[in-house]
Amino acid sequence: MMDAVRDVCVIGLGLIGGSVLRAAKAAGRTVWGATAGKEDADKARAEGFDIVSVDEALSRSAEALVVLAVPLPALPDLLRKVPEGTRLTDVTSVKGPVHDAVHRYAPHARFVGGHPMAGTSRSGWDAGSASLFDNAAWVVTPEEADDHLNDVIRLALDLKAHVVPTTPEEHDEAVARISHLPHIMAAILASVGADGGPLAMALAAGSFGDGTRVAGSRPELVRAMCEGNRDALLMAVDDALGRLGAARGSLASTGGLAKTIEAGHEGRNALVDQPNRTPITIDLTKPGALAALRNLGSRGGRVVGLNGSIAQAETS
Amino acid sequence: MMDAVRDVCVIGLGLIGGSVLRAAKAAGRTVWGATAGKEDADKARAEGFDIVSVDEALSRSAEALVVLAVPLPALPDLLRKVPEGTRLTDVTSVKGPVHDAVHRYAPHARFVGGHPMAGTSRSGWDAGSASLFDNAAWVVTPEEADDHLNDVIRLALDLKAHVVPTTPEEHDEAVARISHLPHIMAAILASVGADGGPLAMALAAGSFGDGTRVAGSRPELVRAMCEGNRDALLMAVDDALGRLGAARGSLASTGGLAKTIEAGHEGRNALVDQPNRTPITIDLTKPGALAALRNLGSRGGRVVGLNGSIAQAETS
Repeated sequence: MMDAVRDVCVIGLGLIGGSVLRAAKAAGRTVWGATAGKEDADKARAEGFDIVSVDEALSRSAEALVVLAVPLPALPDLLRKVPEGTRLTDVTSVKGPVHDAVHRYAPHARFVGGHPMAGTSRSGWDAGSASLFDNAAWVVTPEEADDHLNDVIRLALDLKAHVVPTTPEEHDEAVARISHLPHIMAAILASVGADGGPLAMALAAGSFGDGTRVAGSRPELVRAMCEGNRDALLMAVDDALGRLGAARGSLASTGGLAKTIEAGHEGRNALVDQPNRTPITIDLTKPGALAALRNLGSRGGRVVGLNGSIAQAETS
Repeated sequence: MMDAVRDVCVIGLGLIGGSVLRAAKAAGRTVWGATAGKEDADKARAEGFDIVSVDEALSRSAEALVVLAVPLPALPDLLRKVPEGTRLTDVTSVKGPVHDAVHRYAPHARFVGGHPMAGTSRSGWDAGSASLFDNAAWVVTPEEADDHLNDVIRLALDLKAHVVPTTPEEHDEAVARISHLPHIMAAILASVGADGGPLAMALAAGSFGDGTRVAGSRPELVRAMCEGNRDALLMAVDDALGRLGAARGSLASTGGLAKTIEAGHEGRNALVDQPNRTPITIDLTKPGALAALRNLGSRGGRVVGLNGSIAQAETS
């Protein structure tokens, strides 16, 4: 078995990249970073981090794990610079388009896709923290079970996240429903509320405040995230349109909303009442390990530890 | 000028009624209550409150302010029992249908509609508290400016709320947008998310949690609230459907969501950046006082004090 890769290079030092850099250092890793944003670079340097140019960061990374933490549109230019054999992962909120970009622009790199399910409505280096990933789900989208996957899993676990393995397609469909659609719905709700004028705003309280919170996020970041997952998001929006239209029809015709409200209550319960989890192990050196990992994620399970090549997991 | 009415009778001891009873007592009022729910009555009695039958509560209330805190469907039967000249207000989340019911079933009572914009996803006596209305907006829908209105305003202020005067129609349209539609949207979002299966639920975090929070409320209460405001809610749902359909069309045709996301961001800002308020006074004995109050509420203003018949208000 190959030695575990301990050094971490982070490219892009916004909320997520900056938090990976801090959390990896806090976990005892040797870290360095690079960013096109001069302001974030200066702030990171002022906090004692080793920040260099993108080219230098990559040139140092032959024996490191390189975390791509730039926005999706910046990925192609960055990937073209990546040397053959570089160990890559990423933290982008969509996975299908990232896998496509890696295959196209850095086909000789080694790649496991990643997406930590953590964030705030703030952005930039200043918004980050070493504890951002504590107890968060960290999606990985491996194409094979190998030592590079083990290194990516080990990094996520060191950052105090748990690891949810799946395919790029299943990831993108799931996040369309639970991350991107909520931003669309929040935007629609905020607009309809504001259309009600000053009286409506003066009366708005808990339910409107909760339902519109993420509409306070920076619009350009929300757009990049949602537009980058167009195909899966269209399906989720169609599902919402169908259900909202059905609610409208029922309210208009019978005056009743039972089906809508009860289905929503059950859906909320599915979130709150997470199933009991059973510990299992998966030997990542065995044939079928990749399928076992994907099956674990599909069923709502996760990897919570890694002992050599033995993944400690919880399934439901 | 007539003496201010100090005694308070509360009928219905759920979350809101139970909180009015507690808060009015905490404010030094003499209070008594009644409820059809034996369990809530026993709990309230055990906490030292004077709980009697509905008939007795009403028979004691010739010189009291009677707060109707029962669900909308229970109002007609209750109103039929109300003696002529009784001073009524209510705390129901819809105002047009309540005004209609009072005119029909208790035409000789004195009535000012009310709606405190406070609540939690919990319900029943146990969920209430004396501080539920601290800093909350308390809508009043007076049909004239008189001593009874003053009594209702004084109660809301004693309970540490501020008072937003408006018409039943404007109230119902505003709350459809900022209270009832959020429940529909939360239900739709929770359903679409749960459709994504265990993987989606395992990945759900901040935005989905916020956007679906009120879907955890008791379905029968949400239904009663939303279905009771059917006409205004239909308009709000149509607004949301139109905007969601436009977002869908834009995403499918151009791949862009700029208009949706930016309008949502502006709407959220309209909530967060409440306007600066200027202190004014309104003499409630002057002709035009009712129109002045309604105008205040339409513009997002509120009454924050009452000195005799002089309302201390803030306008924007």
